[in-house]
Amino acid sequence: MEIISRQYCFGGTQGLYQHESVSNHGPMRFSVFSPPHAQHGKVPVLFFLAGLTCNEETFMIKAGAQRMASELGIMLVAPDTSPRNTPIDDAIGDWEFGEGAGFYLNATQEKYRRHFNMHDYVATELPDIIAKNFPVDITRLGICGHSMGGHGALTLALRYPEKYRSVSAFAPIVAPSHVAWGQKAFSKYLNDENEWSQYDATELVKHKQFKGTILIDQGLDDKFLANQLKPELFAEACRQNGQMLHLRQHEKYDHSYWFIQSFIEDHLKHHAMYLLT
Amino acid sequence: MEIISRQYCFGGTQGLYQHESVSNHGPMRFSVFSPPHAQHGKVPVLFFLAGLTCNEETFMIKAGAQRMASELGIMLVAPDTSPRNTPIDDAIGDWEFGEGAGFYLNATQEKYRRHFNMHDYVATELPDIIAKNFPVDITRLGICGHSMGGHGALTLALRYPEKYRSVSAFAPIVAPSHVAWGQKAFSKYLNDENEWSQYDATELVKHKQFKGTILIDQGLDDKFLANQLKPELFAEACRQNGQMLHLRQHEKYDHSYWFIQSFIEDHLKHHAMYLLT
Repeated sequence: MEIISRQYCFGGTQGLYQHESVSNHGPMRFSVFSPPHAQHGKVPVLFFLAGLTCNEETFMIKAGAQRMASELGIMLVAPDTSPRNTPIDDAIGDWEFGEGAGFYLNATQEKYRRHFNMHDYVATELPDIIAKNFPVDITRLGICGHSMGGHGALTLALRYPEKYRSVSAFAPIVAPSHVAWGQKAFSKYLNDENEWSQYDATELVKHKQFKGTILIDQGLDDKFLANQLKPELFAEACRQNGQMLHLRQHEKYDHSYWFIQSFIEDHLKHHAMYLLT
Repeated sequence: MEIISRQYCFGGTQGLYQHESVSNHGPMRFSVFSPPHAQHGKVPVLFFLAGLTCNEETFMIKAGAQRMASELGIMLVAPDTSPRNTPIDDAIGDWEFGEGAGFYLNATQEKYRRHFNMHDYVATELPDIIAKNFPVDITRLGICGHSMGGHGALTLALRYPEKYRSVSAFAPIVAPSHVAWGQKAFSKYLNDENEWSQYDATELVKHKQFKGTILIDQGLDDKFLANQLKPELFAEACRQNGQMLHLRQHEKYDHSYWFIQSFIEDHLKHHAMYLLT
């Protein structure tokens, strides 16, 4: 693991790191905010998965999360949203697919399956690297995400409830099988429609449960709300299957990081309830 | 004045605006965060002047200031750091001079004097535009800045103490006449060395006073500290001339917005002391 940069911030450190990814067969970058508490002992960890077009720096620069993470003593980890500079011809140039749009799945289509394995990367490889290289208690792990990253956070938490103590999302893609973003990505990355449901939070929650309350914030002026996000599908599936969900809908807020920064403190406190007890 | 974008944030609005600048003879952009209080009455205003290479969005995206500005009810205004797309041949391509490096002065050299008048722009033109287009009490005006923008904030506050109720800076260039950044810019923008002292906070404070305490935060791992910033020169001039100064020096912090975001809350509260009473 190579340290690209490390800078002091809120009494802790903001760092950018790179390593050779086994899952994605190439270099991957991630950002870590390490709170002051990490200088004296092991701290809990919150992963944040970013959305389409974002990278490992977006959340750290735009969400304003470090202040509260510093206060609570939670480490923040932000992976990139896909591998980069792959040799695949159509992996760049489309903001909804390929680089910047890994969709937190393991590709099964021949063309993508060597490099696009963001599911394994985020679920297993990166937590292992964090556990080995940083002073963390990796059993105290939470996950949060935005849009495509909200999809990633919800599907990982529902599939591996034993790994994650807490989960939340901002404007998540909750039913990718039923919206254009998800259908396009899944049909290109995956061989078979039977594989889709394992990456669809609304499908997963029909037979899986997360032990804590899922917190979701959604802006009502989000231009993707009606066509790509559809939180009502997830809310209804949670209701039918007894999954605790706190879905907050906010008038006037859109899909941007201005929205995320307005409510990030609430999310950090939500995770702290589960990670610090 | 044209609205480029306006988005909801912390119960207020984050906006990007453009207008034809009389001072700079061309279009200029600026960002405004308008707190929720502005929906019900006039609010005080804090200008933030950014540093070399930055633009009108940098502070708004990276400093994390909106949360506390929303709470305190202070409008934030961030101008660009220079005019853009000027027809001047050597105004681009050098991060220390020209576009992105206006140094908050009025150029007197023939080549630059039509377009590079950031002093007039920030001191007069933009406050007038804000007063006309936003619900503000422009008599409650504070100014803050970073690096080159800290130089701008200090020089404006010292020259026009009647305009500004409060001033603060992060890692400011306090003595531009004595450091390479300032010498390069001043010798190119200005005709005569006699003009330099009006844009040099350390020179100004020898015969001018600001009525409130000047707050300055400086990181001690700032790579520009010894050669370009030299806060000790300003501190000594303040001491000799009875100017109240609160210079805080922080171990381990560097010159970045990670440093700024770590202490922006203190600056907003400093300005609130003067702007809200």
